[in-house]
Amino acid sequence: MPENSTLNSFASDNVTCACPEVMDAVLEANNGIATSYGDDKYTDQLKQQLSEVFETEVSVFPVVSGTAANALALSALTPSYGKIFCHEMSHINTDECAAPEFFTGGAKLIPIPTNTGKIDADSLTSVIRGRGNVHAAQPATVSITQSSETGTLYQLDEIAAISEVASQHGLHVHMDGARFSNAVVSLGASPAEITWKSGIEVLSFGGTKNGCLAAEAVIFFKPELANAFPYLHKRSGQLLSKMRFVSAQLQAFVSNDVWLRNARHANQLAARLSQGLAGFPDIELAYPTESNEIFVKFPRPLIEFLTIDGFTINEEELDGTAPPRFVTAWNTEAKDVDTLLRTIERYYQ
Amino acid sequence: MPENSTLNSFASDNVTCACPEVMDAVLEANNGIATSYGDDKYTDQLKQQLSEVFETEVSVFPVVSGTAANALALSALTPSYGKIFCHEMSHINTDECAAPEFFTGGAKLIPIPTNTGKIDADSLTSVIRGRGNVHAAQPATVSITQSSETGTLYQLDEIAAISEVASQHGLHVHMDGARFSNAVVSLGASPAEITWKSGIEVLSFGGTKNGCLAAEAVIFFKPELANAFPYLHKRSGQLLSKMRFVSAQLQAFVSNDVWLRNARHANQLAARLSQGLAGFPDIELAYPTESNEIFVKFPRPLIEFLTIDGFTINEEELDGTAPPRFVTAWNTEAKDVDTLLRTIERYYQ
Amino acid sequence: MPENSTLNSFASDNVTCACPEVMDAVLEANNGIATSYGDDKYTDQLKQQLSEVFETEVSVFPVVSGTAANALALSALTPSYGKIFCHEMSHINTDECAAPEFFTGGAKLIPIPTNTGKIDADSLTSVIRGRGNVHAAQPATVSITQSSETGTLYQLDEIAAISEVASQHGLHVHMDGARFSNAVVSLGASPAEITWKSGIEVLSFGGTKNGCLAAEAVIFFKPELANAFPYLHKRSGQLLSKMRFVSAQLQAFVSNDVWLRNARHANQLAARLSQGLAGFPDIELAYPTESNEIFVKFPRPLIEFLTIDGFTINEEELDGTAPPRFVTAWNTEAKDVDTLLRTIERYYQ
Amino acid sequence: MPENSTLNSFASDNVTCACPEVMDAVLEANNGIATSYGDDKYTDQLKQQLSEVFETEVSVFPVVSGTAANALALSALTPSYGKIFCHEMSHINTDECAAPEFFTGGAKLIPIPTNTGKIDADSLTSVIRGRGNVHAAQPATVSITQSSETGTLYQLDEIAAISEVASQHGLHVHMDGARFSNAVVSLGASPAEITWKSGIEVLSFGGTKNGCLAAEAVIFFKPELANAFPYLHKRSGQLLSKMRFVSAQLQAFVSNDVWLRNARHANQLAARLSQGLAGFPDIELAYPTESNEIFVKFPRPLIEFLTIDGFTINEEELDGTAPPRFVTAWNTEAKDVDTLLRTIERYYQ
Repeated sequence: MPENSTLNSFASDNVTCACPEVMDAVLEANNGIATSYGDDKYTDQLKQQLSEVFETEVSVFPVVSGTAANALALSALTPSYGKIFCHEMSHINTDECAAPEFFTGGAKLIPIPTNTGKIDADSLTSVIRGRGNVHAAQPATVSITQSSETGTLYQLDEIAAISEVASQHGLHVHMDGARFSNAVVSLGASPAEITWKSGIEVLSFGGTKNGCLAAEAVIFFKPELANAFPYLHKRSGQLLSKMRFVSAQLQAFVSNDVWLRNARHANQLAARLSQGLAGFPDIELAYPTESNEIFVKFPRPLIEFLTIDGFTINEEELDGTAPPRFVTAWNTEAKDVDTLLRTIERYYQ
Repeated sequence: MPENSTLNSFASDNVTCACPEVMDAVLEANNGIATSYGDDKYTDQLKQQLSEVFETEVSVFPVVSGTAANALALSALTPSYGKIFCHEMSHINTDECAAPEFFTGGAKLIPIPTNTGKIDADSLTSVIRGRGNVHAAQPATVSITQSSETGTLYQLDEIAAISEVASQHGLHVHMDGARFSNAVVSLGASPAEITWKSGIEVLSFGGTKNGCLAAEAVIFFKPELANAFPYLHKRSGQLLSKMRFVSAQLQAFVSNDVWLRNARHANQLAARLSQGLAGFPDIELAYPTESNEIFVKFPRPLIEFLTIDGFTINEEELDGTAPPRFVTAWNTEAKDVDTLLRTIERYYQ
Repeated sequence: MPENSTLNSFASDNVTCACPEVMDAVLEANNGIATSYGDDKYTDQLKQQLSEVFETEVSVFPVVSGTAANALALSALTPSYGKIFCHEMSHINTDECAAPEFFTGGAKLIPIPTNTGKIDADSLTSVIRGRGNVHAAQPATVSITQSSETGTLYQLDEIAAISEVASQHGLHVHMDGARFSNAVVSLGASPAEITWKSGIEVLSFGGTKNGCLAAEAVIFFKPELANAFPYLHKRSGQLLSKMRFVSAQLQAFVSNDVWLRNARHANQLAARLSQGLAGFPDIELAYPTESNEIFVKFPRPLIEFLTIDGFTINEEELDGTAPPRFVTAWNTEAKDVDTLLRTIERYYQ
Repeated sequence: MPENSTLNSFASDNVTCACPEVMDAVLEANNGIATSYGDDKYTDQLKQQLSEVFETEVSVFPVVSGTAANALALSALTPSYGKIFCHEMSHINTDECAAPEFFTGGAKLIPIPTNTGKIDADSLTSVIRGRGNVHAAQPATVSITQSSETGTLYQLDEIAAISEVASQHGLHVHMDGARFSNAVVSLGASPAEITWKSGIEVLSFGGTKNGCLAAEAVIFFKPELANAFPYLHKRSGQLLSKMRFVSAQLQAFVSNDVWLRNARHANQLAARLSQGLAGFPDIELAYPTESNEIFVKFPRPLIEFLTIDGFTINEEELDGTAPPRFVTAWNTEAKDVDTLLRTIERYYQ
C-alpha cells in the first residue's frame, strides 16, 4: 500500500473517485425497496437509455469489473475449443489472469504482435488458420480494444476492415471498451458508428475508469447472441442482488453527456501533458496521444528521479512489457499536470 | 419488474437499500486517489478490523456477491474431482446456477436431504464415500449455511460435530454466512466461536442483505489455505479496481456494531411477525423462527388473497420447493409487520 | 492386484478378454498404412454398418472408454449451466469421478432416487424445475442406462414415456448403453426401437464389456447435434491417431450378429446363475435378473465364506451402496456357474 | 478418406500398423481374466520395466493418445491460472484443439517463436513474467518436445539449461516424448540422462508412432507430483477398464529393445531419404535431419507433381505453418525411400 503523491494520480484512471453525478445517483437509488437481481426500474431504464445512445435496441448486462465484462462477453461468443484473436498487448491477454480462458472453458487467445498496439485486417488475416481442422482450436472471435492498450484509437475504417475479415471467416467481433468514452469524444463519431455500424457485435462498455465506482456493462448489438447470457451472468457471480446500485451509476453516467464530458476533460488534460512531455529533450512519446493515456520513453535516471518524488512505476513498466505510462482522468487538474511537468523540469536543471 | 407494495418489502432482505452508516462510508471513501485492486488503506484496515472481530489473524478478500463468495471459497478448498457435501436446499446447490461447479472446474455437490434445513454429523457421515476410489469423485469439502436456508441456526455443538466428522474424513469446512450477522446475534455466541473455534476454515461473510450495497468477504481462518486465492479472485472478475468502495462498506458494517445492531433489529421484527402469524388458525410455521426468515404453511386461498394485495410469491415458492417466506431486514418497520398481519386478519373475517 | 480365482470371473464383464472375431479383426487391420485420426476405411465402413443396424443415418465417433463416451455425449447436449437428470445409482453419477462435470464445464447432475434402478416419467417430472430462472441451473438433458445399473431393463413404453416428458420440457435424451447389447437381446426389440424410435437422441454404444478390447462409440441419431463433436472428440484425447484399431473392433462386433450372440450367451448364463442363487434359503435377488447382472442379498457369513475362496467383493459392495453383484460375460462357462453354485452349496452344509 | 499410395506412407509415422512384438503381446494378453482399471499384472510389471529403463522409481499411467498424455501431464503440473511455456510450433500449442487448456481448466500457453523448432534458456527466460502479479497468469510449467516438432533434438546440455531456468523460476518441466524413442537412439544418451537427470519431471512417453496400436504413458519421475493423477486419469476417460491391453503393448515395446530397434530403423531410413533429397537442386532441408522427420523446402511445381502421384500434403503444410514433411517409421522399407527419390528424379528429367 504505497503512499500517494500527486504524481501517483497519473498511475491510472482507476485510482480516482467517482464523479458527483454518479455518486448522487447512487444516493438517490438508496431509497425504498427494489426487486433484486436486476428486475428493477434502474436496470430497465438503463437498457432504454443505452438503446438510445447506440441508436438501436441493445441487450444490457451490468457487471462490476472490466475483467468480468470481457470474459463474460467472450464466453458468450466463443466455444471452449475456440480461438480468440487479439493484440498481444491486449488486456484480455496480459492483465486478466486467464479470466477469458476460465470463462470460456479453455478457449485459446491468439496474440497478434504489432508495433502500434492495434491489430489490422492484414495481421488478423495472417493468423486465422485451421477452420474445420479438428487438430486446431477453431477460429471463433476477434477482440479489439478501443481506446487501445497504447492509448491509440481504431478509426472507423480500421474497425470496418477488421469486421470484414471477421465476417469472411465466420468470426464474432468484440470490443473491449474499458475506455470507450475517451475514444468516442476523440474520434468525433457516434457510439453507433464506432460499434455496430462498423461490425462490432458485443461491447464491454466501461464506466469505472471514467467516473463510476464500479460499473461496466456487456452490451449486445445482436440480442440473439445473448440468449444464454443471463445464466452465464448469474453463474459468474456478477448478477448482483442489489443491481440497482450498478445500474444507477451507469444511468447517471450516460445521462446529460456526463460520460462524454468526463472523457473530454481527461483527453484534454492528456493532450496538455503529452505536449509538455514531448517538449523535453530525451523524452519521446512511445505512441501518439489520442485519448487519455500517454506512453513515454524516459531516460532511466529520470525514472529514478521521479521515483524519489513518490512516482510509482506501474507493474507493466517494471517487467518491461510497456513504457512508463501517464493516465489522466475525469478529475485530473491542470495544476497537477503542470506540477508533474515542473518536476521533470527540475530534473533537467 | 413488478410494482412494489408494502408486502413486497418482506420478499427478501436483498430488496432493501443500504443503511446510513454504510452509505456514509462510501461517500467518505469517494475522496482523493487510492491505489487500485485492493492495495488501499480501506482494504488494509478492513483486514485488521475483521481480525479483531474474529479474534484471530484472518485473510480477507472482498467480493460483490454471495454467489461469488461461495463459489470462490469452495474453489479454494475443492479439487476439480472433488465432492462438496451440502444440504439439498442450500443456496450453493439450488440458487447459484452451478457457479460452484463452474469455479471449481467440475466438482460435484452432494445434496443431503433433511427436514430441518440443516445437515448433521450423522447425515453427513452417511454420504461420505469413495475416498481413494478413483471411480468416485473425492470427498473434499463440507459447506453449511448459517443462518440456514430455513432460517434456523446451527448451534455451536452442531457445528463442532460436523467439523469433527469433516476432520476424520479429511474434509475442509466452509460456512455460507450470507446471513451470518443474524446468526451471531441470535446465538449469543462470538463470531470466533461460531466459526474457527468450531472448526470452520473459510467463511462467506455477508454484508449485502444486512445493510450494504454490494459487499461480501471471503474470510480464511487458516491463511495458508488462501495461497492461490489472489489469482482465483482476479481471474473471476471479483478483484475490483476501485476496491476501496467495497472495503469501505464492510468497514462501516463491522464498525460500532452496525452489523449486529442491524441484524438484531431484523431478528426482533421477525419474531414479532412470526408470533403474529402463528396466532392465526390454518397458518403453521414450517420451521422455528430463529433468525430473520419466516417460512409458513399457508392455505392456498390466503396466498391468492395476498397476491391481490400486491404480495409477490417468491420463485422458490412458485415451483413448490419451499413454503412461502417472509424476510425482515435492518430497516423493516414495526408498522409494516402490523400492516401485514392486519391484511391477513382481513382474510379471516 | 488381487489373485484371480474362478469366482472373480463374475466380478464384472470387463475382466474378460476379447472375443475371437474382434481379435481377428484387429489382427487383420494391422496391415499396411491407413490415414490417421479416423479418416480410414474401417471408420467409414463402421458408420455405414451402424446406420444399417439402427435403420437410420447415424453419426459415429469411436472412443476407448465408457466414461469418455458418456461424458463426451453429455457435453454435446448440455451447456455448462445445465442440469442432467439421471438415476442416483447411474454410472455417470457415481462411477466416473465427475467426468460429466469436467467435460461439460460444470453442468449439474440431478440424481433421481428410485428402488428399481430406473427412473420413470413421474420421478423425472418431479425434479424438473427452474426453467428460465437464472438462479437455477437449466434443465438440459436426461440420461438413462440400458441395461440399467441394477441389471433391469427399460421397456419401450418406459423409454417413450421418459422421452415424452423430455420433449415437453425441451430436454435432450441420452442413453448410456455400456450394456446395450444385453438389453437388445433380452428385450427382443430392434436397436432402432430401443433408441431413436423411442426418442433417444444420442447413445453411448458399448463394446468393451461384451467382447471388445477397448471400443465404444458415441452414436448420434440426430446428426445436427454432432456439429461441434469432432472438436470435443479431439480435445478430449479420444480421437486416436490409429483409429482403425478401434473401428475394426466395432466392425467385427456388429458383423454377423457377434454382439448379439455374445450378449445372448451372457444373459443365458446369468439366468442360470440367478435361478440357482434364488434356490438357496437366505439368498434373495435384489432386482429381477433381466440382462447379465445379478444383484443378491447375501447373509454376511456367506460373503465371508466366499471371500476365503477367493471371491473379491466389488468396491460398490464394500461401501454399502450396492448389494453383491455377479456379472456373466460373453465367455462365461456353464461349469463356472455351476462351480460357484456348488461353492455356495457347501456353505449351507 | 484419401486413397493410399506408397508416397503416403511418409505422411506420418501414425499411418503405420503395429510391430509384430507388440501385436503378439496383445494376443497373449487376450487370455483369461484380469482385474480391470489397471489393477492387473501387465500394468504392474510395466511400471517395474519402466523403472528399470529410466533407472529410477517412476509412476506410470498408460493412456491411449498423445494428446491425452500431454494434456493430463500438464494438468498435473499447472494450476488453472497458470502459464505453460512452449514452442509456438509445439503439438500442444497447435495440434491438440486446446486440450491442454481444457484439461487444466483454462491455463494459458505462452508460445515461444524460434527458427529451430526448439526453445532455449534465453528465449524461455525472456517470456517469464508476472510472478506474484495477480493480473498475470502465473508462470507454472515449461514443456519441450523431444524429438522436436521440426525433427531436431534437444541436446543434454540444452535440456539442462532449460531446466535450470525453470528451477530458478519455480517452474515444472514436462517433455512431450511422442517421438522419444527416436531421440534416444539418435542422441546416444540414456533415457535417464535425457529426462530426469537433465531436470525433466514428467514425460509423455510415446509408443503409438513407433510400433504400438495405441499406447502412450505419462511417466512421473517425481512420484509426489502424481498424487492427484489417478483421479485426473479416471475423470478424463483414459483409465481403461481392460487396461491390460494398453500395458501389454508398452511392455512388449520396451522389452528386448524393441522400441530402440524400431526407432533406429526409422532414423536410418530418414537419413537415407534426407541425403537423397538434399542431393536434388532446388530442394533444401528446412531443418537438419536428426530423427525420423524430414522437413524440406520444395519448389511448388514439385509438390503438384507429387500430388498427381498420390502424395498427400499434410494439413500443416496446406495452411503454410510448416514445410512439407516426410516421416519414416519402424517399418519403412528402403525400397519405398528409393521409389520416392526416383519419383522426384522423374520430375527433374
